[in-house]
Amino acid sequence: MMNKKIKIGIFGFGKTGRLVTNEFLQDRNFDVVWVARRTLKDHYKFASHLLGYEYERGAIYSIADIDESFFKNHFVDIIVDFSSAKGVYSYQAAAGEGIKIISAISKYNPEDIQLLESLKNDTAVLYSPNITLGVNFLLIASQILQKIAPHADIEIVEEHFRDKKETSGTALKIANILGLEKDRHVNSIRVGGIVGKHEIIFGLPNQTIRLIHESFNRAAFGQGAIFAANWLIQKKKGLFTMENIIIDMFQKNIPVC
Amino acid sequence: MMNKKIKIGIFGFGKTGRLVTNEFLQDRNFDVVWVARRTLKDHYKFASHLLGYEYERGAIYSIADIDESFFKNHFVDIIVDFSSAKGVYSYQAAAGEGIKIISAISKYNPEDIQLLESLKNDTAVLYSPNITLGVNFLLIASQILQKIAPHADIEIVEEHFRDKKETSGTALKIANILGLEKDRHVNSIRVGGIVGKHEIIFGLPNQTIRLIHESFNRAAFGQGAIFAANWLIQKKKGLFTMENIIIDMFQKNIPVC
Amino acid sequence: MMNKKIKIGIFGFGKTGRLVTNEFLQDRNFDVVWVARRTLKDHYKFASHLLGYEYERGAIYSIADIDESFFKNHFVDIIVDFSSAKGVYSYQAAAGEGIKIISAISKYNPEDIQLLESLKNDTAVLYSPNITLGVNFLLIASQILQKIAPHADIEIVEEHFRDKKETSGTALKIANILGLEKDRHVNSIRVGGIVGKHEIIFGLPNQTIRLIHESFNRAAFGQGAIFAANWLIQKKKGLFTMENIIIDMFQKNIPVC
Amino acid sequence: MMNKKIKIGIFGFGKTGRLVTNEFLQDRNFDVVWVARRTLKDHYKFASHLLGYEYERGAIYSIADIDESFFKNHFVDIIVDFSSAKGVYSYQAAAGEGIKIISAISKYNPEDIQLLESLKNDTAVLYSPNITLGVNFLLIASQILQKIAPHADIEIVEEHFRDKKETSGTALKIANILGLEKDRHVNSIRVGGIVGKHEIIFGLPNQTIRLIHESFNRAAFGQGAIFAANWLIQKKKGLFTMENIIIDMFQKNIPVC
Repeated sequence: MMNKKIKIGIFGFGKTGRLVTNEFLQDRNFDVVWVARRTLKDHYKFASHLLGYEYERGAIYSIADIDESFFKNHFVDIIVDFSSAKGVYSYQAAAGEGIKIISAISKYNPEDIQLLESLKNDTAVLYSPNITLGVNFLLIASQILQKIAPHADIEIVEEHFRDKKETSGTALKIANILGLEKDRHVNSIRVGGIVGKHEIIFGLPNQTIRLIHESFNRAAFGQGAIFAANWLIQKKKGLFTMENIIIDMFQKNIPVC
Repeated sequence: MMNKKIKIGIFGFGKTGRLVTNEFLQDRNFDVVWVARRTLKDHYKFASHLLGYEYERGAIYSIADIDESFFKNHFVDIIVDFSSAKGVYSYQAAAGEGIKIISAISKYNPEDIQLLESLKNDTAVLYSPNITLGVNFLLIASQILQKIAPHADIEIVEEHFRDKKETSGTALKIANILGLEKDRHVNSIRVGGIVGKHEIIFGLPNQTIRLIHESFNRAAFGQGAIFAANWLIQKKKGLFTMENIIIDMFQKNIPVC
Repeated sequence: MMNKKIKIGIFGFGKTGRLVTNEFLQDRNFDVVWVARRTLKDHYKFASHLLGYEYERGAIYSIADIDESFFKNHFVDIIVDFSSAKGVYSYQAAAGEGIKIISAISKYNPEDIQLLESLKNDTAVLYSPNITLGVNFLLIASQILQKIAPHADIEIVEEHFRDKKETSGTALKIANILGLEKDRHVNSIRVGGIVGKHEIIFGLPNQTIRLIHESFNRAAFGQGAIFAANWLIQKKKGLFTMENIIIDMFQKNIPVC
Repeated sequence: MMNKKIKIGIFGFGKTGRLVTNEFLQDRNFDVVWVARRTLKDHYKFASHLLGYEYERGAIYSIADIDESFFKNHFVDIIVDFSSAKGVYSYQAAAGEGIKIISAISKYNPEDIQLLESLKNDTAVLYSPNITLGVNFLLIASQILQKIAPHADIEIVEEHFRDKKETSGTALKIANILGLEKDRHVNSIRVGGIVGKHEIIFGLPNQTIRLIHESFNRAAFGQGAIFAANWLIQKKKGLFTMENIIIDMFQKNIPVC
């Protein structure tokens, strides 16, 4: 019996997009059909060649190529979007062809989010600005620990590269979900080229518990997208997040007494 | 309505026993009725005085005082044992009076364990060599994470004071439950006066997740015993561990999607 | 030849003062002659008894006992002060008897500092609000690293117990000496009962260097005072800090190529 | 006045060699004249093109091209070697032309080392298997700290990617220089894709000091080589290591009291 590969289309071929494409190219479960980038650069070349492979996969298109018939003529099972907030405007047409969508975009406007949510009746959509496994594990584990140790003081430390101006969206989300005032309890470290580190510190009178996640290469986002794609392929419709997946896996995997 | 205090008897008044007694003395939910120590030292004095308090609580007895009628005449709701493996031989008589038992002893022989287990039909027994909240949280969270990320490599690092000769029992237990060969995957650091630190490292290709627990004062064991006592007081019979409690709390507190 | 013990008088018998006294009592190089505390409590008892030892050392006096003749009648080689800013007013009389002074007080007013400095022609004075070896090592090592890697971004993280209201004086000092704006580069974590942790993070494009000091017991201050006393006993006059000692040791111990 | 660029030739264009070449290409102080690789692959192409730049720098040669006249016809100021132990056999000819040498090779045989050392009368040679700034800072700082705190217990933890079979040479070197038995005091963690982390833990009774270096991208080796090249260009002859440079900088930068 043939094990059919999952066909993937990727939005975005910048620094992160290239790394994500590379992860999908290296995974045998997936077939990268095309990559759509903002500019016309490298038009009709292959992402695989640009990443140093000999074979031809991931034909490069431009966003300008994406018209109504694009998704019919270039069908994929799942679109993975690491481009920009603008990608959302192509989702409707893709959903119309039954294509599922994974979005890792962090800077959507409220209207974009609304558009994204409206697709949940047409196809399966997974939306997570931070798509790494580790960060989502921290998000769920910290909520449980807060319930187990309600008197613990909690602080969040996030470390990123010097030029990241805004506070980590992930850190803000963790603060929000734990009911912590972000101005007081999120501590941002900006030094050198740190890719991304999040630490949640639980302090009790005589002990501390620390949950730490560190990405040292943006390829971690590609791994997260692969994890999400393997899960989403089995869903027909609905709006999901990485948290949903991890909550689901917590429920199934709590050890038996 | 009066909120009745939980009556506590403590076995052990060594370095850890004193700290544990002190934690129970400071908690308003508990009334430390007596402390039984190995020697006859400070016989009939009060643990509270020896710990610098003005009031009289925790009458000091010797193990030699504990005969068949002791528990009838000096009733408590729960015995908390931080003494030695020998304490187990008094449990039967205590259980006969309906006294519940919390044992944090780490060096039981198989016969001792058997004796302990035989009490489960008579009273409620909680047995956990490492009774801190944090370590037990790590134990459960790491099992779930291993299921979520089955390809992750896992290593355990435990740090303790220079004179601790054996490998941490807690680290061995974590290794065992995660299916890791202890000789290869448990790393023991012995320096200075470190009270106790356990770190579980999950390594993926582009990210790491670290779960770290650090006790910086043995009073953390007292806090763990208090946590256990508040839970055990509601149980009639059975043999429990801190893991059972934490698993129970995981199940009740997984966030809803 | 007899190895003469260094006679010590201690100001302060609060939480930290007790731990410091205990460290000096346990070190064979020292003879704790007396301890002066603010109140009249335990007057004429012995610090050794109050700390659980059988022998009699460290007669307890009150600050009220310290008049002009006190230091003549109760001579010591060195006073170690962990009490409050007020202790400084007794230093003049002590210096007049040739007694050396170690002050670990953090909250002096400018006038107090001036008074302290004026003693440098009369006796040897060592003043360090944070007297632990580790913190002073960090202070010197970080200055050198900043010179070696001038392009590194630097951040300071300090972690202390929940009730510590002000920013760590040590962290502020490190920031100041490294030329870092304190409001932007000192990050304060306040959780549970953390005794004291300081971390200096140097970030370069592809690597980080972290210098971390953690005190998990205030007895570390006693060890610092012992280290300082062994050094100060050989000085006749002058005003010193722990930094001076550590700089001195750096100079003597740089490895030869 | 023109600021003349330092001409660089690079041995090695594997995973690390490419990253090192990339760092030199991006630094305005340097002109990458050529790159010599083991195979004939990409012969006469440009390293700059292969790394995604539009301009032509770093002509690709094969080791087979390197005969007696190669260095005369393709003069550079410094050769940077990240290839293999075999590179050492070309050094003599290069030294004969007055070319300086930076070798970061870790697996030399004793004969190779001897050959390397014999060049010190002909040109300036810098040899450091671990050429990152951070690791060499740790090496010097830890030696000083050991002298300051001779009673501290010391342990080394090194973390690397799962497939690194041997113990970190850097960790062994640190152990050796601190007089620690490597089998007992070097702890090796092998998980996922960790690029390289070294931690030296100093444990005292009530405090720990940790010196931690983490490279999260092999480009850190390129930065180390650049640091070394800027220093070596000013030397005429002699055999040096990164340690020599860092010791030199410690001596010049100890703060004044």
